[in-house]
Amino acid sequence: MVRFVDVPNMQRWVIDTGIETAIAGIAGTIEEDFRRWPAFDKTARVASHSDVGVIELMPISDDRTYGFKYVNGHPTNPARGLQTVTAFGVLADVDSGYPTLWAEMTILTALRTAATSAVAARVLAPAGATTMAMIGTGSQSEFQALAFRRLLGIERLRIWDTDPHAMDVFERNIRPLGFDVVRAGSAADAVRGAEIITTCTADKTYATILTDDMVVPGVHVNAIGGDCPGKTELDAAILRRADVFVEFPPQTRIEGEIQQLAADHPVTELWRVLRGEAAGRTSPDQITVFDSVGFALEDFSALRHLAGALDGTDYYADVDLIADPADPKDLFALVAAGAAVGAPV
Amino acid sequence: MVRFVDVPNMQRWVIDTGIETAIAGIAGTIEEDFRRWPAFDKTARVASHSDVGVIELMPISDDRTYGFKYVNGHPTNPARGLQTVTAFGVLADVDSGYPTLWAEMTILTALRTAATSAVAARVLAPAGATTMAMIGTGSQSEFQALAFRRLLGIERLRIWDTDPHAMDVFERNIRPLGFDVVRAGSAADAVRGAEIITTCTADKTYATILTDDMVVPGVHVNAIGGDCPGKTELDAAILRRADVFVEFPPQTRIEGEIQQLAADHPVTELWRVLRGEAAGRTSPDQITVFDSVGFALEDFSALRHLAGALDGTDYYADVDLIADPADPKDLFALVAAGAAVGAPV
Repeated sequence: MVRFVDVPNMQRWVIDTGIETAIAGIAGTIEEDFRRWPAFDKTARVASHSDVGVIELMPISDDRTYGFKYVNGHPTNPARGLQTVTAFGVLADVDSGYPTLWAEMTILTALRTAATSAVAARVLAPAGATTMAMIGTGSQSEFQALAFRRLLGIERLRIWDTDPHAMDVFERNIRPLGFDVVRAGSAADAVRGAEIITTCTADKTYATILTDDMVVPGVHVNAIGGDCPGKTELDAAILRRADVFVEFPPQTRIEGEIQQLAADHPVTELWRVLRGEAAGRTSPDQITVFDSVGFALEDFSALRHLAGALDGTDYYADVDLIADPADPKDLFALVAAGAAVGAPV
Repeated sequence: MVRFVDVPNMQRWVIDTGIETAIAGIAGTIEEDFRRWPAFDKTARVASHSDVGVIELMPISDDRTYGFKYVNGHPTNPARGLQTVTAFGVLADVDSGYPTLWAEMTILTALRTAATSAVAARVLAPAGATTMAMIGTGSQSEFQALAFRRLLGIERLRIWDTDPHAMDVFERNIRPLGFDVVRAGSAADAVRGAEIITTCTADKTYATILTDDMVVPGVHVNAIGGDCPGKTELDAAILRRADVFVEFPPQTRIEGEIQQLAADHPVTELWRVLRGEAAGRTSPDQITVFDSVGFALEDFSALRHLAGALDGTDYYADVDLIADPADPKDLFALVAAGAAVGAPV
């Protein structure tokens, strides 16, 4: 039997756990797994692009556990009432090859993306930061806000989105939770006074959500939306002034903001910072950019954290996904009753 | 909602349909899809190898439908009561990125592998063949026998396996279905007089199941078991005497029997034969080898056939895999009740 966490069960787990506590738990597992980075068999995700979007498979494995996520990205989906990003994921046992967990990951991806941003910001954002600008207030935005409050103590948000409705939704969701929210009149207005700038927009184009003049010394840029070939958010000049931190360079150089730069532009891998092998932020005037595209290890960590949380609960159903004949060399026995039907015996 | 076909429902579908009819239906869809080969976005499968086995993802897409299969291969699994190969698969809508079907594929893979072998043999085996040698009588073997009877009229089987128990199981399953079965004393004995030789063993090593002297002019070799780097079944000399037919050369050159040959050894793609653009068998003395490793399109076809067969039936359950907030920009609404828990408001 494989444990299956559908959407209602994932909702129950998140609600009962508390969103911030769930994010903090996932963040802890992400840090733990990033610190053992060399233990993983890593590969850039396998993408299938169409005119309207992309479908990706993101596999990763250590010597005990294999995991993958299926995720789509379809920027025009919301116009017809569908999510831009939906996902599901699987964990399996390396030793037997048998899957052990199947879970919805639309909600879980939102949690892990926010957790990853906050894990990176803890080593990259300026000390004592209190204010975050958020450019793009779509489905990921509330999770980012909660992650940055829980892991960095951010209480003040300055928001901007080209879609006023997205800002309405964000404010309605976030104000009751005790945040100080300023609705800006433009992206340039939003970034004023913010020590951290989170960009999270969904257009599948080379966009310039942040221009060079908007990023002052000392700022940390949490760049989430540039995550696909041909989809970027930052003026390349910002990247040249900044120290750029990435997840998995072979993937980020194709998908991230740094696709705008030379293939050998120096970047620092986040896992090295988390292991103490490379420096994070080293001065108050430094501009840091976390050029996040989302890496398979983050999904693995989120699923691993979830799997651990399921024991002794009813947040899952057992599903019969693996054919299990009494004699492993006799798969046929499972359908033998269908052998005579239509057979010219 | 996503349609989910678990193991019991797959069993019911196969039994109610009849195994041979199910295989014939899948074979028809495989032929149809191979004939529109250029319409697919194809990639070699993504494999994660460990000391004891492999876990693979096999994605493929046309402009309407995306599909992938998860499949493992663990040759030592049967020794502890587990299947060598288990699998599940997904179809999704390219336009929205949303998955539509999730199905067990351990049973379905057995059907599609047999269907593919028979589709190839129809254009490669000598005319009027009546006898097939089967080297390796594990989980795939009965399905091969039924496929070759239904699609080629093969009624006589000469079998050999190093594991007598595997032969016992095969004979017990297949004799009641009207086949004429001869249990051989060796692989060399099994191939005597057979116009078709099917090799389907599971050892993850360079093996020589068939030596050069065992393959006489005019024979068609249906080579299934050499499907992994370092895992082959045929003496390379056979391949040099034969015309070799393959599914997807970039994958077969790494995984198939032809991994033993030079990277530019001439091969013919099966889809070209099925489209009439390349010759299959051209003479009675020709040796043909179908160097089959299993390609993503065959799984796509099997899932597509299954999906079509489900309409109006109860062979599936609807599962809630896709988070679906009323407002697509408000994913947070699904878990908002968990925002206050543990929050330092």
